[in-house]
Amino acid sequence: MTTPEGTRGSGDPPVFDTAFRDDLHRLFVWRRDVRGFRRAPLPEGALERLLGLASLSPSVGLSEPWRFVIVESETARGAVRASFKACNADALKTQTDERASIYARLKLAGLDDAPCQFAVFTDHATVQGHGLGRATMPETVDYSAVMAIHTIWLAARAEGLGLGWVSILDPGRIAEILDVPPGWTFIGYFCLGYPSGDHRTPELEREGWDARATPATRILTR
Amino acid sequence: MTTPEGTRGSGDPPVFDTAFRDDLHRLFVWRRDVRGFRRAPLPEGALERLLGLASLSPSVGLSEPWRFVIVESETARGAVRASFKACNADALKTQTDERASIYARLKLAGLDDAPCQFAVFTDHATVQGHGLGRATMPETVDYSAVMAIHTIWLAARAEGLGLGWVSILDPGRIAEILDVPPGWTFIGYFCLGYPSGDHRTPELEREGWDARATPATRILTR
Repeated sequence: MTTPEGTRGSGDPPVFDTAFRDDLHRLFVWRRDVRGFRRAPLPEGALERLLGLASLSPSVGLSEPWRFVIVESETARGAVRASFKACNADALKTQTDERASIYARLKLAGLDDAPCQFAVFTDHATVQGHGLGRATMPETVDYSAVMAIHTIWLAARAEGLGLGWVSILDPGRIAEILDVPPGWTFIGYFCLGYPSGDHRTPELEREGWDARATPATRILTR
Repeated sequence: MTTPEGTRGSGDPPVFDTAFRDDLHRLFVWRRDVRGFRRAPLPEGALERLLGLASLSPSVGLSEPWRFVIVESETARGAVRASFKACNADALKTQTDERASIYARLKLAGLDDAPCQFAVFTDHATVQGHGLGRATMPETVDYSAVMAIHTIWLAARAEGLGLGWVSILDPGRIAEILDVPPGWTFIGYFCLGYPSGDHRTPELEREGWDARATPATRILTR
């Protein structure tokens, strides 16, 4: 599992030109949280390649605390799906009727169709990195894994693949289903595959769930 | 504050070619956590452009909970620097002597030189997104901001700019210094500027702090 440069020497620093930056911006614009998948399998080696790229992500104190659990067995997938359905039913109770109907209409998970599924955990007990940088903010361990997920998201979209993040789950139950080492922290469950459509705007925006804000409203100066 | 496509119509989905993907992989490979900065200012509008791109990041339930605080005043910067120094001194106490000397040698923060500095917070109380997707895992609010930070990191590197994440800080103290609305959660403090050097490997690896692991060792299958 190597990256395109994984086996090369150090080489000269790349210079990224305007054409690349424009395409990178398009990648940010067109990346989507995908809920609808075609059932076609991923190209051979695609997941391994994406996980290899993920390992290039920033991690606190070089701790690389991300742990990937590829979920292939029908038993495990069925149990995850059941946990999602139970949590989703609970979540619906807290929404008003009108919103609940929109909520229910949105296909919140590609769990039934996505050909590739994996969970991400972190290992806070890892000795790698010797604890550097995380004394006051241990949550930076989890943040490292989140950036690895975001790397997968972008790299997948650049290959025409879509990723969907399933967060309506019970973390303890998922750890139990996937029988991970004790102490691992559950970060998220992911569906990966060819999307059933390409969209420039988020599904939640298209469905009228909410609108995106003007970025300037998110900025203070001190 | 618009993205390159921010004012266009929906357009056709982009197709990313092999050349773009190779450059994207190079971006992942050469992105660094930068600690050494030149004092030269950023190009006009660069920060606003980067924060605009960050707003294209995934967010749980379309909540866009990220909040950016640009830190310009010398008083605020000095107070952040003092908090870092205090926390860093505490962190050093937990390291063995040999490691502590490496630790001290590493310039852990570009706080003295970085021309641009900002903090990122999240607003868990935001009504945007109507709570969707975060009932069982409220930490996904913070994860959304972390992906926005990662977007800035990548977009900055593509412009030849470096980002450094300062995590050795007391979150409560930073919120106090920056006088943010009550209830905001501190995610991280960031230095942005032209890096003093370009490197293919992390500074912590070059300095012998730790080595990176083989990605395959981070993967289980269930």
